[in-house]
Amino acid sequence: MIRQTINYCSSCGSTVTYRVPSDDNRERAICDSCNRIHYRNPLVVVGCVPALNDRVLLCKRAIEPRLGKWTLPAGFMELGETVAGGAARETLEEANATVELGHMFAMVDVIDAGQVHLFYTAKLVSDFGAGAETLEADLFSEDEIPWDEIAFQSVEFALRKYFETRHSDARSVHVHELRRSHH
Amino acid sequence: MIRQTINYCSSCGSTVTYRVPSDDNRERAICDSCNRIHYRNPLVVVGCVPALNDRVLLCKRAIEPRLGKWTLPAGFMELGETVAGGAARETLEEANATVELGHMFAMVDVIDAGQVHLFYTAKLVSDFGAGAETLEADLFSEDEIPWDEIAFQSVEFALRKYFETRHSDARSVHVHELRRSHH
Repeated sequence: MIRQTINYCSSCGSTVTYRVPSDDNRERAICDSCNRIHYRNPLVVVGCVPALNDRVLLCKRAIEPRLGKWTLPAGFMELGETVAGGAARETLEEANATVELGHMFAMVDVIDAGQVHLFYTAKLVSDFGAGAETLEADLFSEDEIPWDEIAFQSVEFALRKYFETRHSDARSVHVHELRRSHH
Repeated sequence: MIRQTINYCSSCGSTVTYRVPSDDNRERAICDSCNRIHYRNPLVVVGCVPALNDRVLLCKRAIEPRLGKWTLPAGFMELGETVAGGAARETLEEANATVELGHMFAMVDVIDAGQVHLFYTAKLVSDFGAGAETLEADLFSEDEIPWDEIAFQSVEFALRKYFETRHSDARSVHVHELRRSHH
């Protein structure tokens, strides 16, 4: 999902101009024909760590970016669903797997992508397999995780926090911030 | 922020058509001229409960919707900031107040609005006053909260959970789901 510049009003098709609206403090794309203001805001990516006993389910990506790298089931939250519902849907789509979600345990601000990544603990309660965007799905114990082959830094953070805290009763959310300069 | 229908491609200005892309399972606005797909996804609203001893800071809204009703400092998360950064910024803008944020303690899925509301605990560490979107800002103890005059159900949920849990050491996120049929 590339976030391209807004050139035209998606409502009436006129050319937009960029300026700060009178009741605002940021530059926005404004349509002077129909007076619409077109905002761009961060998007939510939702995922989970599907666990079966001591192992967790990872998916090898069949699509770019990071084709061939391993990731947790996760993707863009859609209209009409809850955060938890989105995490379960992505797991079904990417790993053909049903999960019982636990609690939200990790939140990563991915500043330069304009995304917030939210991860749940989860219990794998079905078989699994490779969905359309997945080459292969498999279970890994902590010492089997292919740390050098993890697709995204947010997923690595979630996995590390998951293994650090999985035997704890704490239910806090671990927060992390990623900026391009730190990649 | 009204989420109007997409009629035109914001990239090239051509008319879009609605159909399910080949690698997708949902109808999207597609531009057949430049091949852009225009997604619509939930947005993040970030806020906090600024506390000073036993009291919390509320703002009386100077704008629609819910003009004249009381709310917590909160608003749409912007590109380039963290969830926590957005919560602090909104508090500065709406209540001229500086806060030290604690932990994220409430998440509300506002399904029909296509929004996820995230609330932090916070300590008020400055004076406060009415920002541009606020008629009046004031501190309320639990038994002074104008429960019948709270602007939004998500804010009422956050306030109730805040008072229920403020003396607890637990750091879990309380989750709530709002649909129009429940309003």
